[in-house]
Amino acid sequence: MEALVLERKDELSLRDIAVDEPLGPHDVRVALRRVGVCGSDIHYYAHGGIGPFIVNEPMILGHEASGEIVEVGAEVAALAVGDRVCMEPGIPDPRSRAARLGKYNLDPAVRFWATPPVHGVIRPTVVHPADFTFRLPDSVSYAAGAMVEPLAVGVHAATKAQVSPGATAVVVGAGTIGMVTVLSALAAGCSRVIVSDVQEPKLEIAAALGPVLPVNVRSENLADYVMRETDGWGADVVFEASGNGKAASEVFNYLCPGGTVVLVGMPGAPIAYDVLAAQVKEARVEHVFRYAHVYPQAVAMLASGKISIDTLITDLYEFSESVQAFDFARSMPPTTVKVQIDLADSI
Amino acid sequence: MEALVLERKDELSLRDIAVDEPLGPHDVRVALRRVGVCGSDIHYYAHGGIGPFIVNEPMILGHEASGEIVEVGAEVAALAVGDRVCMEPGIPDPRSRAARLGKYNLDPAVRFWATPPVHGVIRPTVVHPADFTFRLPDSVSYAAGAMVEPLAVGVHAATKAQVSPGATAVVVGAGTIGMVTVLSALAAGCSRVIVSDVQEPKLEIAAALGPVLPVNVRSENLADYVMRETDGWGADVVFEASGNGKAASEVFNYLCPGGTVVLVGMPGAPIAYDVLAAQVKEARVEHVFRYAHVYPQAVAMLASGKISIDTLITDLYEFSESVQAFDFARSMPPTTVKVQIDLADSI
Amino acid sequence: MEALVLERKDELSLRDIAVDEPLGPHDVRVALRRVGVCGSDIHYYAHGGIGPFIVNEPMILGHEASGEIVEVGAEVAALAVGDRVCMEPGIPDPRSRAARLGKYNLDPAVRFWATPPVHGVIRPTVVHPADFTFRLPDSVSYAAGAMVEPLAVGVHAATKAQVSPGATAVVVGAGTIGMVTVLSALAAGCSRVIVSDVQEPKLEIAAALGPVLPVNVRSENLADYVMRETDGWGADVVFEASGNGKAASEVFNYLCPGGTVVLVGMPGAPIAYDVLAAQVKEARVEHVFRYAHVYPQAVAMLASGKISIDTLITDLYEFSESVQAFDFARSMPPTTVKVQIDLADSI
Amino acid sequence: MEALVLERKDELSLRDIAVDEPLGPHDVRVALRRVGVCGSDIHYYAHGGIGPFIVNEPMILGHEASGEIVEVGAEVAALAVGDRVCMEPGIPDPRSRAARLGKYNLDPAVRFWATPPVHGVIRPTVVHPADFTFRLPDSVSYAAGAMVEPLAVGVHAATKAQVSPGATAVVVGAGTIGMVTVLSALAAGCSRVIVSDVQEPKLEIAAALGPVLPVNVRSENLADYVMRETDGWGADVVFEASGNGKAASEVFNYLCPGGTVVLVGMPGAPIAYDVLAAQVKEARVEHVFRYAHVYPQAVAMLASGKISIDTLITDLYEFSESVQAFDFARSMPPTTVKVQIDLADSI
Repeated sequence: MEALVLERKDELSLRDIAVDEPLGPHDVRVALRRVGVCGSDIHYYAHGGIGPFIVNEPMILGHEASGEIVEVGAEVAALAVGDRVCMEPGIPDPRSRAARLGKYNLDPAVRFWATPPVHGVIRPTVVHPADFTFRLPDSVSYAAGAMVEPLAVGVHAATKAQVSPGATAVVVGAGTIGMVTVLSALAAGCSRVIVSDVQEPKLEIAAALGPVLPVNVRSENLADYVMRETDGWGADVVFEASGNGKAASEVFNYLCPGGTVVLVGMPGAPIAYDVLAAQVKEARVEHVFRYAHVYPQAVAMLASGKISIDTLITDLYEFSESVQAFDFARSMPPTTVKVQIDLADSI
Repeated sequence: MEALVLERKDELSLRDIAVDEPLGPHDVRVALRRVGVCGSDIHYYAHGGIGPFIVNEPMILGHEASGEIVEVGAEVAALAVGDRVCMEPGIPDPRSRAARLGKYNLDPAVRFWATPPVHGVIRPTVVHPADFTFRLPDSVSYAAGAMVEPLAVGVHAATKAQVSPGATAVVVGAGTIGMVTVLSALAAGCSRVIVSDVQEPKLEIAAALGPVLPVNVRSENLADYVMRETDGWGADVVFEASGNGKAASEVFNYLCPGGTVVLVGMPGAPIAYDVLAAQVKEARVEHVFRYAHVYPQAVAMLASGKISIDTLITDLYEFSESVQAFDFARSMPPTTVKVQIDLADSI
Repeated sequence: MEALVLERKDELSLRDIAVDEPLGPHDVRVALRRVGVCGSDIHYYAHGGIGPFIVNEPMILGHEASGEIVEVGAEVAALAVGDRVCMEPGIPDPRSRAARLGKYNLDPAVRFWATPPVHGVIRPTVVHPADFTFRLPDSVSYAAGAMVEPLAVGVHAATKAQVSPGATAVVVGAGTIGMVTVLSALAAGCSRVIVSDVQEPKLEIAAALGPVLPVNVRSENLADYVMRETDGWGADVVFEASGNGKAASEVFNYLCPGGTVVLVGMPGAPIAYDVLAAQVKEARVEHVFRYAHVYPQAVAMLASGKISIDTLITDLYEFSESVQAFDFARSMPPTTVKVQIDLADSI
Repeated sequence: MEALVLERKDELSLRDIAVDEPLGPHDVRVALRRVGVCGSDIHYYAHGGIGPFIVNEPMILGHEASGEIVEVGAEVAALAVGDRVCMEPGIPDPRSRAARLGKYNLDPAVRFWATPPVHGVIRPTVVHPADFTFRLPDSVSYAAGAMVEPLAVGVHAATKAQVSPGATAVVVGAGTIGMVTVLSALAAGCSRVIVSDVQEPKLEIAAALGPVLPVNVRSENLADYVMRETDGWGADVVFEASGNGKAASEVFNYLCPGGTVVLVGMPGAPIAYDVLAAQVKEARVEHVFRYAHVYPQAVAMLASGKISIDTLITDLYEFSESVQAFDFARSMPPTTVKVQIDLADSI
């Protein structure tokens, strides 16, 4: 089948590649309709690997996907041909200790799309376990369906935070993950979210997502701002979504006593962590790794209008323009949040 | 001062009554602006008491209140004359064991407005501890401020529920408490709320509060409805807000495995509780008593637009019409949710 | 193989019965060494069924078991022939929604030993999934290993209770489940446990389990006792383990404000539940159904000496005396806690 | 009164000092009986200050104390002259926001014994709020009573950890705080505790506290040891009690997926914190600052025998030898855990 293949660092082609995917009894075959371009896709393109994951063989990119079911396995009862769906890109070993405890995202043996040696899904069809395939209601478009993957990161972070209704949250960083975290924090009960970044266009997009207070940390001190807005008490929850080590090391400066920090971003190196600053506030620090059990919830919130995600899809390319889409995304335009690829006519 | 006085069962008068209220160093004096009529006010009017609380002396009614500060105690720093505020009607003993643990609502010695022998606030002014008086932002009207008291019940219930983002909730009963619980459940993260009642006008008002599915249990079986809407899994959270014993005894029929029940309504007698039904689902059952520490959150959600409460204020009377307001509320019109009394010109 | 077969209500035989058990790749074959007699075994014997579970075909009894592995499936890596083990008697469908969430005990399709139509294990050998088979360290005897099943109920209840270190608990009922709950509550952090029953010999056994205060409710009022022992505050946790409806309806009388109730016992009919009594204390009520994920913890506590369970095994019978063992257990001698059957020479 | 006064860095005297302490209506006056020497006392002696707290005026040392009540304020009902008691050394402002939320230890305005400018209690008598004074049962000696203060740190850490019954914990560091954390972790439900240190005598004392596995990290790799003992899964809870930055930065190496870290020790500088290592395990990291609401629980556990603390009191000095006691403690003998001062005859 024709697919967007990362041949090696810096070299992408849209070409035929042999993918052998038999349909198991608990699987479905999905015709892809929309696939988003993730920062990790771009990172593989630009660097040929992420940490221990090295692209040694040509690999199809893409893992934020929606599509239409074209074939179902013999034992699949909950889904049918023609269903509009989105898919979780990670497939754990159901017998692993972590999966049995309900924490399948922590299974080290998970197979994740577009993570070597597993192919991604910028291609016409893919076979996937029905258990990780979720029906989209009519009110959720394929475009929104392909946003469920990044949104799930935000929803999982907000779930871990155990937000109290009416809380004030800070989201550090207004990239895609920051944006979905803002949406999730608001949907999860925050009365308002203070969001920080250095790019004004990103802050403008974030400010339109709801009761959001944007702070450009080039011109304003975030801690001062938060303390002023909270009468000197601090924010109830801080979501670190920038991956910036310095920003991550400063979260306790504006956290309230007894508050919660969720570290969502992934700094490239250990951060300087002020234990005493965390202790005098008895901070609870949570860490998230992808997500587990939140796809149905994320779809439900899109369906009911609790979360509107369309403004985050800033750029759209045809499947035939996939390489251009990646080159555009790689240039990181400040007004771009999410680039998607349209595979409406893939099969 | 002139006040709405419950002389005894069935007898209300708007008349002068002597109230001696010196201003302590940590107190404020508030000119009342709006006071809502609560079901408990009506119950005292109609029955002369609630459980162990008997009206033996004339008592001013009303405890859902907003107002304007007209005088501040010597040590009050956080509030000033002219501040628009709402007030928590319960004043605990700060030295009680419960209060020291942060659970001041569980202090048996709490003094609560319009609960014998403590006067309520349908009157021009009241002296109140600054610690239980909360400033209203400009965007929150006195009308909305007087709704913070019932809203706090819903916010506290939703806080106890620890709603996961995207959850499906059921709210049993669409009276005032049911309504504020619907609003709170949605604000706290539910993707949708199924609300049940027997009065169609109430269900219509509830249906307009957001992604709400109304169920008239005169014509439809609630359990069937919930199971159908949740693919046979059940609701994540059930808020019992009707106080109806039979309804309360049925909540496990449509709860999901591992789900949470919050008992908000107060049945007049012990209910028939099916322990096994709760066990096979390992239900967590939470109980709430008024609220604690949620006023600032409720105000913040009104201020940011997360919660819109105006449609619940269905009827407004002048202070001079207070007796009529009570007689109207006592007749329980199906289209009425909240009756308020306007004291804008009280002083 | 020879087995203890319940032919029908009131009729037991130790006789040959054909059991076809092929060994799957993830299974082990276990030679039974000890099996305890559970109240549910006796109930099937005396009544021919429990609720919807009716004994229509001859069924082998027994589900509290330890043994020695005699054969392992092709893909079993964690266990080996000769390992001493205990086994969880319930086998869920790993694809069920509950199991995937980590709550496999709530899967309605679980197959449970000695629950019609599934055979129990008072017989020489059984084939069982390796995932539900747990190695016993040398310090844990087969006798103790066969007590892990009832102990797991107590450990699961104590886990759900989220006991704070130093808490005071009440355990209502000193039957087997009450006893293991006492042990688990102490091991889980309680500084002391007040245990109530009507049988003096049971209370004597309970009193020897640690810092335990026995209360014979024939001669003493439990609520008065608890309030006196806790300076009028109440118990932090109440475990209802009697299954007595009246006892279950009284738990809020001696619970502390903000306290936790765990309903472990299974009353035969709905109980009278005083919602207001639970509300004024904002009780959290948890319900447990068997257990999940606690076998390794229970074994670890036996191994390290945190829990000593030997005094609960009051009566021992040979396999050849199994019918007598059941008749003895059915007579419910007040000095008996657990009757076990020794299958040491079964193969 | 005569007291142990820190005149300035490196200079201690046992001398008369004027302390004016009127007895308020909610206070008690306590004759000191035992006072322990804490690492912070020694730090003030050796350095003249801790962080922002500088000894500018002569200050009495000591804050781990027990004693006998010799006078009670007019409104004190719960305590009486002659009561044997221990005292919490920190007195918060009950009107602070943190205190009202039940988190009084996070009130920045707390006044803490032997923290400039507040005097400590190595002296004959002290006036203290009755609310922070706790009666010792007959079974708890004055020596044990003076250990409640450090023990409370461990109990608070174990409470925050929310230990599941049967868990395996690691305690990093076998100083006084490490020791009380070992005791607390075991009392809170751990089936066993792995404790690490570099001093063999400390490890020997720790090993005698219960099911404890000592690891001398001079000769053994802690991560290797823990992973071997837990079949490669990792420890459920890690308590960092060494305050060593390098040790603190390594905790995720041997934590289990979904595990909890409690940072108890106070490193002198920010630590290198590997966010990704914490993320792939979705670690929950809790921080503790002193303790809140745990004195009664700690006393209850000493009283019931759940915790035996006597072996930690390794050295005893008379009041008249207080300076020698401090010089001894300052030399940090490896076989010493806690040095106490006996004030039995102080009045």
